[in-house]
Amino acid sequence: MPDTLTVLGIAGSLRAGSINRALLEAAQELAQDSMTIQIFDLTPIPMYNSELETDERRPAEVIAFKQAITRADGLLIITPEYNYSVPGVLKNALDWASRPAGKSPLKDKPTAIMGATGGLWGTVRAQTHLRDIFASTETPVVLKPEVLVAEARQKFDEQCRLTDEATRHFVRELLLALEDLIHQLR
Amino acid sequence: MPDTLTVLGIAGSLRAGSINRALLEAAQELAQDSMTIQIFDLTPIPMYNSELETDERRPAEVIAFKQAITRADGLLIITPEYNYSVPGVLKNALDWASRPAGKSPLKDKPTAIMGATGGLWGTVRAQTHLRDIFASTETPVVLKPEVLVAEARQKFDEQCRLTDEATRHFVRELLLALEDLIHQLR
Amino acid sequence: MPDTLTVLGIAGSLRAGSINRALLEAAQELAQDSMTIQIFDLTPIPMYNSELETDERRPAEVIAFKQAITRADGLLIITPEYNYSVPGVLKNALDWASRPAGKSPLKDKPTAIMGATGGLWGTVRAQTHLRDIFASTETPVVLKPEVLVAEARQKFDEQCRLTDEATRHFVRELLLALEDLIHQLR
Amino acid sequence: MPDTLTVLGIAGSLRAGSINRALLEAAQELAQDSMTIQIFDLTPIPMYNSELETDERRPAEVIAFKQAITRADGLLIITPEYNYSVPGVLKNALDWASRPAGKSPLKDKPTAIMGATGGLWGTVRAQTHLRDIFASTETPVVLKPEVLVAEARQKFDEQCRLTDEATRHFVRELLLALEDLIHQLR
Repeated sequence: MPDTLTVLGIAGSLRAGSINRALLEAAQELAQDSMTIQIFDLTPIPMYNSELETDERRPAEVIAFKQAITRADGLLIITPEYNYSVPGVLKNALDWASRPAGKSPLKDKPTAIMGATGGLWGTVRAQTHLRDIFASTETPVVLKPEVLVAEARQKFDEQCRLTDEATRHFVRELLLALEDLIHQLR
Repeated sequence: MPDTLTVLGIAGSLRAGSINRALLEAAQELAQDSMTIQIFDLTPIPMYNSELETDERRPAEVIAFKQAITRADGLLIITPEYNYSVPGVLKNALDWASRPAGKSPLKDKPTAIMGATGGLWGTVRAQTHLRDIFASTETPVVLKPEVLVAEARQKFDEQCRLTDEATRHFVRELLLALEDLIHQLR
Repeated sequence: MPDTLTVLGIAGSLRAGSINRALLEAAQELAQDSMTIQIFDLTPIPMYNSELETDERRPAEVIAFKQAITRADGLLIITPEYNYSVPGVLKNALDWASRPAGKSPLKDKPTAIMGATGGLWGTVRAQTHLRDIFASTETPVVLKPEVLVAEARQKFDEQCRLTDEATRHFVRELLLALEDLIHQLR
Repeated sequence: MPDTLTVLGIAGSLRAGSINRALLEAAQELAQDSMTIQIFDLTPIPMYNSELETDERRPAEVIAFKQAITRADGLLIITPEYNYSVPGVLKNALDWASRPAGKSPLKDKPTAIMGATGGLWGTVRAQTHLRDIFASTETPVVLKPEVLVAEARQKFDEQCRLTDEATRHFVRELLLALEDLIHQLR
């Protein structure tokens, strides 16, 4: 019986109807039978405060987030680019997940990243920062393909379905590369 | 009559007793008569959600934050380093401040940055990311001195007062450089 | 009598006919009467070796390069992107220019950067690295506009003349911003 | 019969007696029997010029460099930090190695990086840039430990032998992690 991988999908934007949430849903649809993408919504994650970073005080939503990462075979992060970096919302969730030192579920978790933007530069700078962050958390990240979706409005239809064939191809390739990385690190 | 500059001081950690809040208070104490540092606490700033980024729905705390930036002659940002980058909490506040496009109070606002860490690397990587972010927001940032406070626990006393003379000197130099930048850009 | 500014223009590619050299020549043509752009060719600059970094042994080409920087009112750097960073050739020239400590002509020299690439991402990552490098050398760099010329082959004609109107506009705006920065820092 | 891995060791400084060359020699000495580190001297590599990037004109030293990478099981790069980045000399060698597209021996080559500096920040920023560069070349890089040797003069004796026990430990750990990465990717 074939093994179906479970990947946790996280979008760095809280807005319903965001192009990055649409990209995550496209990945969900494009995943082969060998992979199931479960979406985790970051909305309930509170602001990180290290006073709450104890077993007694850690917020329930944070515990749920970390457990979802732990249970997943891999992560798929979709990041918008805000001010040449990742959104504070996404970074805040990763700050929670990375703690306490020595117990981070991000460590050694195979991860793929992608991002979409209405402008020309396709989240290049946000993804560079995200790779820096994952070097810190010791999270192995797929190197290629890089899925940088520029001028995204032209690539989705009015129902926010990804219609651009080239982008669909790259998303599929990225998911296959993530699958390879998961198997390689087992 | 001499002009007293008003600088808005922001610490990127929400924890009372954080070393970065202590560093901000040290700066407040070390500022010359020509500069007053007012501290803005990021605790009440909610998560950025672009659905709320309208004149009708923008949270009152965000409006207050942006007004405080607008009124200040300059900014002093104190950043911890979380996962080789700025905390999500700080980035989230800057995400709010930078919007809407064309109305960001960060544009052209003279800014100085510093940071402290218990470890060896003194927020080097967080400050690099922060400079990238401020290149996006068109915020002119003091180039030197860089105030990178490593092994910070040894530099503050039990009342969280900055006692290390070399660090006190660098903080003073940074504030003078900020003052120069403010005057230069007028 | 009006003051004509002298700007030293440097392209990070050694190849005759490179798109970045063509972009530098376009800037030369587009400069207003108030600015003259003199091109410095990096070809004769040898590999940096700190054993040669003495007053007795410093290569004549390096001395000439540093003098040209010193005499100029500002710098215009055109960088290709090689492997997500600046070319080694360009970095090597900046390594020479930045030494010895305390005598770098790069310090406080107003600078503008731009770059062109045949691909989609327009030297975004190379320019980010270059800004990091100039933070080190205390070189003030124009923040906006960013001139990132993507898909450059379509924007130059067969004689390597910049024909794309939007790009010509951005180059002009960048030169005006450099002029402003030079005057501001005087 | 045990397999002995061959690792190509490259120092980013051309100076005899450089602390980074000394660090490379320390690694050579600290390697276990399972690994041999061969040093490649970058001195004869000329400046990159894409006009020479053809099978007819490619310099013999570049061909030798690329063959050495191809034959090696892995790479060990020791980088100084010049102006918050890697030396031009090192970047230039990587620029040659990465071309032509589709024939780069850097692709998929397991790599470890380290660096030493006389100052406090231990090549943090140079290593960040180097990781960006290796993301471009699709070179898998060991994530941990990071070997950032600060205040290096105190850690080597007068014969340039690495004497600091903690650093010797980290170098050994890095070599073991490289060995693991090589085996994992086979």
